Amino acid sequence: MAQVIVGIDLGGTQVRLAIADRGGGISSIARARTTELGGPAGTVSWVVRQVERLAGGARLMAVGVGVPGPCDPRSGTLVNPPNLAGWPRTVPFAAMLRDALRTPVHLENDANLAAVAEHRRGAGRGVSDLAYVTWSTGIGAGLIIAGRLYSGAHGSAGEVGHMVLDPAGRLCRCGSRGCTEAYASGAAIADRTGKPAAEVFAAARRGEPEALAVVEEAAAMVGIALMNLANLVDPELIVMGGGITASWALVRRRLYEPIRTSPFITRNRRPRLVRATLGSQVGLVGAVEWALANL
Amino acid sequence: MAQVIVGIDLGGTQVRLAIADRGGGISSIARARTTELGGPAGTVSWVVRQVERLAGGARLMAVGVGVPGPCDPRSGTLVNPPNLAGWPRTVPFAAMLRDALRTPVHLENDANLAAVAEHRRGAGRGVSDLAYVTWSTGIGAGLIIAGRLYSGAHGSAGEVGHMVLDPAGRLCRCGSRGCTEAYASGAAIADRTGKPAAEVFAAARRGEPEALAVVEEAAAMVGIALMNLANLVDPELIVMGGGITASWALVRRRLYEPIRTSPFITRNRRPRLVRATLGSQVGLVGAVEWALANL
Repeated sequence: MAQVIVGIDLGGTQVRLAIADRGGGISSIARARTTELGGPAGTVSWVVRQVERLAGGARLMAVGVGVPGPCDPRSGTLVNPPNLAGWPRTVPFAAMLRDALRTPVHLENDANLAAVAEHRRGAGRGVSDLAYVTWSTGIGAGLIIAGRLYSGAHGSAGEVGHMVLDPAGRLCRCGSRGCTEAYASGAAIADRTGKPAAEVFAAARRGEPEALAVVEEAAAMVGIALMNLANLVDPELIVMGGGITASWALVRRRLYEPIRTSPFITRNRRPRLVRATLGSQVGLVGAVEWALANL
Repeated sequence: MAQVIVGIDLGGTQVRLAIADRGGGISSIARARTTELGGPAGTVSWVVRQVERLAGGARLMAVGVGVPGPCDPRSGTLVNPPNLAGWPRTVPFAAMLRDALRTPVHLENDANLAAVAEHRRGAGRGVSDLAYVTWSTGIGAGLIIAGRLYSGAHGSAGEVGHMVLDPAGRLCRCGSRGCTEAYASGAAIADRTGKPAAEVFAAARRGEPEALAVVEEAAAMVGIALMNLANLVDPELIVMGGGITASWALVRRRLYEPIRTSPFITRNRRPRLVRATLGSQVGLVGAVEWALANL
């Protein structure tokens, strides 16, 4: 009997599901709009139907699930998911899937699984200690330490978006002042400019001065967050993913500037900074690799 | 033949050496003033004499060495030690000791070894993920992740003292602006007040308003650094050591305030904050435990 792995990338807009072999090769993908599935129970039903349709008859070995925002990986519970409209405050999603599929289910934060994906299949192959930093609507990170995902004592390591860079600074959506996200998240940029962040970045790439100023300030603040991350975690490599990869040539230099010029981080201790390579596949690849890593 | 472990705590002021058994029990201690030993070679000679004197005839199993400031733990080299007056820029101290003692030598940064000591013998026993933060003349940290010391890809993880908390802030001795140390290190407090930091803290404990203001501002900034550390590393426990432990009742509340009131760090995700328990023994205990951990 064929053995298969299922990876699920649960996003605020779209849910995607991949069927993979034990080598991580993805053979088929299903997609649905998150809101159309009607919350946790409807999403579980959709998953069961897709697995039946795409892998009926095969032996299901493990399921990996990436979820947006806070979760408790040990219990497989989503906690107050801010980007899943209509979902309740606490959802034991891993247990629901496990009961429906009769298979071990491993659930993790999506930034953490993107780190796993880039580490095992992307820009971070062969690197022992790396940080994957995603800069999109929000800003977060996943940490690979000694070759393994480190998700923290409470499952919330890598929250670089809410690192305070100026205690008297700009108000963040989270309620604190001076967080990285208050200056640089796609949401904050949209709030300030009245335009979608993607449009602001596109205008900056065309050289429009106002947009360029917004993007440069944002990149400078993310760069300070990366420097603080380098000082605290000392990774060999920082992999940047998320929407920002489309504007890499525009921001790369400014992102690296604080690390490069830090009098404290000498040349031989600088982490390298590279762009993620897996693109929009990173979530599915991460979910599949997480299932495989936990086999 | 009895088997012994040697722990060496190389400080800017004093060098201490402990003879311990394989259970980590310390049976004897030797001390010397660092400057009186005449640099690396003289220090190695002193170590050999003490081991001969205190453990002659026993079988030496391993040596652990804690050093102040940057080092490369893999090669056992001190790099530009800022607190060892008269020492050259690069010192292969582990290799020198190994050749003289014919025993494996394991060298690490002193803040890292203090983390190992508190984890194995002090306030952090049984905890899987913890940060030890020392607040004295300088401010640094050691990270225990998944039960093991994590020293970073370049041996410099935990540099919480040079986390930037305000890019336009106060000038730090390192040359950056707004580092934690620029507000709160004993050295910065002495620079600003013209008095030794220990005196300023003592005056604050007596309630003198000027000293109290200095200490409260410093503790508030260290508290923000601890919050950033909690967001990035998500430890279960933060252990505070160094000179600050003498003023614990004065600073504890303020140090914890940013973590406690963060809208982002919900109650169930807060690390606990406790005082180190090993006091001035922490360096020797860490060196002995590090030798044992590497046996």
